[in-house]
Amino acid sequence: VTTSWVEVPDGSPFPIQNLPYGVFSPAGGAPRCGVAIGDRVLDLSAVVVPHADSFAAPSLNGFLALGRAAWSDVRRSVIDLLTDPAHQPAVEPHLHRLDSVVLHLPVEVADYVDFYSSEHHAMNVGAMFRPDNPALPPNWKHLPIGYHGRAGTLVVTGTDVVRPSGQRKPPDADRPTFGPSLRLDIEAEVAFVVGTPSTLGVPVTTADFREHVFGVALLNDWSARDIQAWEYQPLGPFLGKSFATSLSAWVVSLEALETARIPLPHQDPDVLPYLVDDDAWTLDLALEVRLNGELASEPPFSTMYWSPGQQLAHMTVNGASLRTGDVYASGTVSGPEVGQRGSFLELSWGGRDPLQLPSGREVSFLEDGDRVTITGWATAADGVRIGLGEVSGTILPAHSRNGEVHPA
Amino acid sequence: VTTSWVEVPDGSPFPIQNLPYGVFSPAGGAPRCGVAIGDRVLDLSAVVVPHADSFAAPSLNGFLALGRAAWSDVRRSVIDLLTDPAHQPAVEPHLHRLDSVVLHLPVEVADYVDFYSSEHHAMNVGAMFRPDNPALPPNWKHLPIGYHGRAGTLVVTGTDVVRPSGQRKPPDADRPTFGPSLRLDIEAEVAFVVGTPSTLGVPVTTADFREHVFGVALLNDWSARDIQAWEYQPLGPFLGKSFATSLSAWVVSLEALETARIPLPHQDPDVLPYLVDDDAWTLDLALEVRLNGELASEPPFSTMYWSPGQQLAHMTVNGASLRTGDVYASGTVSGPEVGQRGSFLELSWGGRDPLQLPSGREVSFLEDGDRVTITGWATAADGVRIGLGEVSGTILPAHSRNGEVHPA
Repeated sequence: VTTSWVEVPDGSPFPIQNLPYGVFSPAGGAPRCGVAIGDRVLDLSAVVVPHADSFAAPSLNGFLALGRAAWSDVRRSVIDLLTDPAHQPAVEPHLHRLDSVVLHLPVEVADYVDFYSSEHHAMNVGAMFRPDNPALPPNWKHLPIGYHGRAGTLVVTGTDVVRPSGQRKPPDADRPTFGPSLRLDIEAEVAFVVGTPSTLGVPVTTADFREHVFGVALLNDWSARDIQAWEYQPLGPFLGKSFATSLSAWVVSLEALETARIPLPHQDPDVLPYLVDDDAWTLDLALEVRLNGELASEPPFSTMYWSPGQQLAHMTVNGASLRTGDVYASGTVSGPEVGQRGSFLELSWGGRDPLQLPSGREVSFLEDGDRVTITGWATAADGVRIGLGEVSGTILPAHSRNGEVHPA
Repeated sequence: VTTSWVEVPDGSPFPIQNLPYGVFSPAGGAPRCGVAIGDRVLDLSAVVVPHADSFAAPSLNGFLALGRAAWSDVRRSVIDLLTDPAHQPAVEPHLHRLDSVVLHLPVEVADYVDFYSSEHHAMNVGAMFRPDNPALPPNWKHLPIGYHGRAGTLVVTGTDVVRPSGQRKPPDADRPTFGPSLRLDIEAEVAFVVGTPSTLGVPVTTADFREHVFGVALLNDWSARDIQAWEYQPLGPFLGKSFATSLSAWVVSLEALETARIPLPHQDPDVLPYLVDDDAWTLDLALEVRLNGELASEPPFSTMYWSPGQQLAHMTVNGASLRTGDVYASGTVSGPEVGQRGSFLELSWGGRDPLQLPSGREVSFLEDGDRVTITGWATAADGVRIGLGEVSGTILPAHSRNGEVHPA
């Protein structure tokens, strides 16, 4: 471990050990790629690093496509620039204060897949959505269940989220009604960002995970539970989730998370051979969910049942190809304890037992004006936090195009 | 109706009334945009048309983004170029024989959504997949059910399709097994291509359909029924469909299909106000499915329950935004008659009653080497066919990466 000549405030999520990648615009400037350190961002398009031309772009995709060797080369180079004081005079002019720049979606998202890999979450939701069936579907422990989401509505942290309208049908009603969602929720998730593409028709194995996946981000899969419950059978979630999915501004490289690797929890029954990972690991990431600043939950990523490598192998075992910019998310991270649940649906048990916040507010679902912030970090061996930054969003009132659209 | 100075062979799907858009490479040349007429393609990047710069690109997206007025301007200009003999000397050098060029995916696909809008198909599949429940889910007549598919595995007609491998569990087995799909199938569909984007948070109404949707193509949503049946509950189809989805090379503009507009079949019960379309219409498109050249089915698009305008309004009513290059498909087109079913699952009733082809071959699902070709067309008032071209693909044997991956 080395020290940077850039002063890093205590508790910053972005120490020299981290160096996450993002896209930013300095005041009056065009979007470009950078690396965060402390409360600064280094303009990678303006300093001497390998593949510098790939950083003068409004997304990380060009850099991500270069592959693992290039990712390592750049990281080594950035560490050198930020630790050797000899570089300080040349580099310092290209460090911008984070509070002076605009952050953009770091990746031009190709396909977005959402998994469902927390056993605790699946058990909770199953019990609420399908009370007459076993909480865990019969396929759940044989494959990491996943589905495609809407890539075009991934938005960067800080983007306001308009409350969606749609159809919902109370169980005792004859017909659906239409109006703004009354059960607007979050899902605290960890996302994996694909760098290197693969060939159509050729599966990617668990062993190839590090050749294809560049890094990790935080994701909030906003969910309108009333819309979802009415629409999702038989073909899965659609409008209950497609209105917005928020992504953190920073992608932390797998290299930076090396010390956060932990063994995957035991899987029983045994998985099929294509899902066997001889080096089955996950990441020891702590998450925090805050509602208007108050702590609502502390989901532990370490409790997920399926590993990111297994998710990748499953997603491609049918020959589906990867593209640079593919994002796949873990599904809601919920731990075994009540205070570790990653959605308000679970935290309030479907609204039956509202969550009581320190301020006294009782929360079942989100109200207009609510701001949700999810943070996450790994703790390195020396106690330093490798932060994933945050993913936040504020709920705006439903759109009212005309009286007909919003009869409610 | 006018006549082109380009000779159009009898029965060509591409008369002067059509002029579909695609992307092609002439021998030794880079991909560019063109319009098909007869057995030729006109290089739009090389002739004098409005917005010519948008056609020197490997996808139609630049042109699609220009919007409805530009689409009309270009169509008028191309009609003029191809009908006024005065233009022949300047234009003829830029007409390439279709059999001398390579056709590419016409659109850089943003998000891909698949609907489920044929009542006959939904009834058939429901009866087979969910025999203990009503064939039609309770939400089916209240909303056009849809889900997101994998945009990155849309491929152009003619691309071979590798048989996918995956998990499947026979009903009487204790555990799933792994291997190449044993129930590989097609879904004959009609796709709609979005040109003009919309704003996140703002629904698009049925009345705005023509401002956003440019045109129509054919789509084959290849489906591995055994993989799908095991994986799809509770979050919908994933690997059973994501290995490949084939799109025709030509996008026919809505303007060219003006005479194919017909009223939508009656909907009962009444739909919610946001799905009301004062000018509810669909297209009178005939489809043909051929297996190795033999006619297998004749699905009629006119029998679809939900209109393309309703699908668009539903897809965005929650505020989800559109991007240029979004593709949404109708779902399998199946008519009321046995010979009008758009999948082999239905044509063979799940394999129970194999379809007998004229050659004597009995078909339940696809074998390696099988070639499926779907064609489609509208018939204009003067009896001229406005063809959608074709979408075809040949099944290749499953990939065998190593013994472990394919224990079956």
